[in-house]
Amino acid sequence: MNQLEEGNKLQLDFAKLAKSVKISPDIIPVAVQNIDTKEVILVAYVNELALKTAVETRTAVFWSTSRNELWEKGKTSGEVFDLVEVYVNCEQNSLLFKVRPRRGGICHTRNAQAQPRNCYYRRLNLDSSELENIDP
Amino acid sequence: MNQLEEGNKLQLDFAKLAKSVKISPDIIPVAVQNIDTKEVILVAYVNELALKTAVETRTAVFWSTSRNELWEKGKTSGEVFDLVEVYVNCEQNSLLFKVRPRRGGICHTRNAQAQPRNCYYRRLNLDSSELENIDP
Repeated sequence: MNQLEEGNKLQLDFAKLAKSVKISPDIIPVAVQNIDTKEVILVAYVNELALKTAVETRTAVFWSTSRNELWEKGKTSGEVFDLVEVYVNCEQNSLLFKVRPRRGGICHTRNAQAQPRNCYYRRLNLDSSELENIDP
Repeated sequence: MNQLEEGNKLQLDFAKLAKSVKISPDIIPVAVQNIDTKEVILVAYVNELALKTAVETRTAVFWSTSRNELWEKGKTSGEVFDLVEVYVNCEQNSLLFKVRPRRGGICHTRNAQAQPRNCYYRRLNLDSSELENIDP
């Protein structure tokens, strides 16, 4: 079992963002919401090229901060998400993508039934500080 | 009129995140969702202290990357948001806060009726590339 992804221990990676920004300085965060279920399914990043590509193709496209390249969601897997609406915050330093899956999921992890998950499948128990998997 | 906050021109601040991380390296992004309306109302950041304070007080607490200090939402204004649920993503590098306002709004901007807004009050017109205010 991948403890980081499947375990019940909170071990937040507070170093990741600084690493990401070192590799890809000109990125802004994007909250990604399923427009039908209203679930928040991902927080990702875009740079200017990723946003331009997303708008042009009307699909969810991000900038991969680990691979430092365009991340056209579903390009190889076919699990494409249509980009329905884009919102910007007051200070123009974050975005909200409202998306609709053509098929499949947003997260690379799968539940026990091999169904794709949304990324926020673990809830923090505020009393015990343990993570509880809501889509095991 | 503050063009950045009220205007219809998309002028994303792609430099902000690198500046934030320089000042506050150990932060992770938090998507903030109203648990009742399901609206995404803010993307903010927490460090370890902010998350600890949020969980202890069961209220929305963040790390202000512009002031480099704890941002206890509503501490002076009284516009406190109860922290109902906290979720973590697969890679443990982002969070989702589900919150409920006791009163007031999350955004520092106000609409023409002087009511507080959620931060995503402008939608990008994907054809014209102009911003449309949905809560003017």
